[in-house]
Amino acid sequence: MAHDSVATNRKAAALRALHVPGDPVVLPNAWDAASARAVVAAGFPAVATGSAAVAAALGYEDGQDTPVDEMLAAVARITRVVSVPVTADVERGYGLDPAQLVRRLAAAGAVGCNLEDSDPATGSLIGVAEQARFLAAVRAAAAEAGADLVINARVDTFLHGSGSPEERLAEAIDRGRRYLEAGADCVYPILAGDPEVIRALVREIGGPVNVLFRPGMPAIRDLAALGVARISFGSGVHSAAQEFAARMLGAIARGDDPFPSG
Amino acid sequence: MAHDSVATNRKAAALRALHVPGDPVVLPNAWDAASARAVVAAGFPAVATGSAAVAAALGYEDGQDTPVDEMLAAVARITRVVSVPVTADVERGYGLDPAQLVRRLAAAGAVGCNLEDSDPATGSLIGVAEQARFLAAVRAAAAEAGADLVINARVDTFLHGSGSPEERLAEAIDRGRRYLEAGADCVYPILAGDPEVIRALVREIGGPVNVLFRPGMPAIRDLAALGVARISFGSGVHSAAQEFAARMLGAIARGDDPFPSG
Repeated sequence: MAHDSVATNRKAAALRALHVPGDPVVLPNAWDAASARAVVAAGFPAVATGSAAVAAALGYEDGQDTPVDEMLAAVARITRVVSVPVTADVERGYGLDPAQLVRRLAAAGAVGCNLEDSDPATGSLIGVAEQARFLAAVRAAAAEAGADLVINARVDTFLHGSGSPEERLAEAIDRGRRYLEAGADCVYPILAGDPEVIRALVREIGGPVNVLFRPGMPAIRDLAALGVARISFGSGVHSAAQEFAARMLGAIARGDDPFPSG
Repeated sequence: MAHDSVATNRKAAALRALHVPGDPVVLPNAWDAASARAVVAAGFPAVATGSAAVAAALGYEDGQDTPVDEMLAAVARITRVVSVPVTADVERGYGLDPAQLVRRLAAAGAVGCNLEDSDPATGSLIGVAEQARFLAAVRAAAAEAGADLVINARVDTFLHGSGSPEERLAEAIDRGRRYLEAGADCVYPILAGDPEVIRALVREIGGPVNVLFRPGMPAIRDLAALGVARISFGSGVHSAAQEFAARMLGAIARGDDPFPSG
């Protein structure tokens, strides 16, 4: 157990060290064991789950519809088959208290997690002080448990905030700074896509920033040049694979050859 | 419970009725809830799981490497989200006795199953009499439980048999007949692909025949014209979707745009 926890903490440290501004860790999010293996086979140094894609694979909606046991069982199926660090998207934490959350993540073999600052039921932002306290409590619980954890603090002002683009950016910067002070390792302002906005976030937050890669975004190398430290894909790879499967199923339904190159 | 079992048995009857020689039920096998929903969205009237693809999604190898609880939990996640009949590939039954197997399939919401006649550990064929007794016992257990079950009896002579092509065909025909007599609803001689072989199997077995569609096979309409009653895809759709995802992950790893049409 002591040996396991040394090895696990080494993985957490390795994952944290991959967050280099200007040379970002790229995490095309996985949704099951097969996709996680494919991520590793493609050469990525870590695996991140995406809650929306995991939820879809399990038959649930995004937004904490997935029972926590099922979400963490899916994470455990991934950590069982890959040796790289695994970070789990656990939405808002499913109502677990910080000690439970840390214990459950460790039991699932995850060395990192995403935690978001809006309520999936209402779509409203959590108060910044409340979320900072929660993140600090997760950090403290991890220290208490001796289970190092890379905390990626999602900032949902561009998703659920209100006000002008400038006001949302200012709010995202404020939240990002407070979450880093609270002990987060990385700040994830989801839906930030404009290069100038990303540049401002990186400069003003003053710590590792995670950008969600979506269709139409600047290239990965251009995002790197803006100083981001982490690039993830959310449900992008899963959605594209599902669209591929849907086209194949359509071909089968029409009686066409579904393996045209076969 | 009585009402549930009436509804479930109606689904089993509906699935059985879809097995029409010359107008086959087409089952592009699913591996999780999202793929099962995609199968239904594409208009297919039933969902079949494929054990190899489910195993891959869960992080196991094909050939009864998947713990039975996990395999049936995956089936239950599918039956929870689709209203069409679901038939489960349960390999050789994971060592469950017939009554347990029937009970566990019913608990998972499946109204049909595939059962194969070779030992995945050794690759050797089970004796035909032994397999016929097993199928008859599953049929009897289903009747005893009042849980109707569409039994698809896989015949592995083309996969694991020995002898000349003619000897394997003769063995497949003999097994198919005996399995139908034992109570199977359909016979699945896996890897039968040659039109003349399929025609002989359909003619000589004298009951519903399932063909596995693979790249390079005759078109679905041509398989229908040969008299097959069921066409399934094994892990074909999952493998193709995984290959698609692997190409996308390769593009991301190279820094290319993974959403070229985005």
